[in-house]
Amino acid sequence: MGRVVVDVMPKPEILDPQGKAVAGALPRLGFGQFASVRQGKRFELEVDGPVTDEILAAARAAGEQVLSNPVIEDVVAVYEDVEQGAAL
Amino acid sequence: MGRVVVDVMPKPEILDPQGKAVAGALPRLGFGQFASVRQGKRFELEVDGPVTDEILAAARAAGEQVLSNPVIEDVVAVYEDVEQGAAL
Repeated sequence: MGRVVVDVMPKPEILDPQGKAVAGALPRLGFGQFASVRQGKRFELEVDGPVTDEILAAARAAGEQVLSNPVIEDVVAVYEDVEQGAAL
Repeated sequence: MGRVVVDVMPKPEILDPQGKAVAGALPRLGFGQFASVRQGKRFELEVDGPVTDEILAAARAAGEQVLSNPVIEDVVAVYEDVEQGAAL
């Protein structure tokens, strides 16, 4: 059983109101280290077998065609989750 | 200028209706490889200087205290984005 992660972020030139709200809240809550924040989506796709190159290619295609809106979002990363979602 | 990524996912025991909807749509759209999907959030936190251990610790704390709801979500990853958001 394998897992592929697809990360989708708003394009850099697109306004990100969620990220702006987080960036405004962090300094008030004691986290003044961060100059700006952008918020995107992370998808974890489970496959029954191992993560092959074909699976990664399919995940990338799904990311570009289904999981993201290419007008305003980029698929920034597609990779196998080798930790299988283990906690920190 | 550095960037830290904080990934937040719904806990495994929590129902994830967004992920279920995506998992139902993918086979209809030609992506039958994926058995299940979960959808979470990806935050990119920008810092003006380099990403130090203190910055990573602050990002982890912000992830647990601000960016996630610890009742239903886990912070699954905190790491420096060395690619600086480069496209695939």
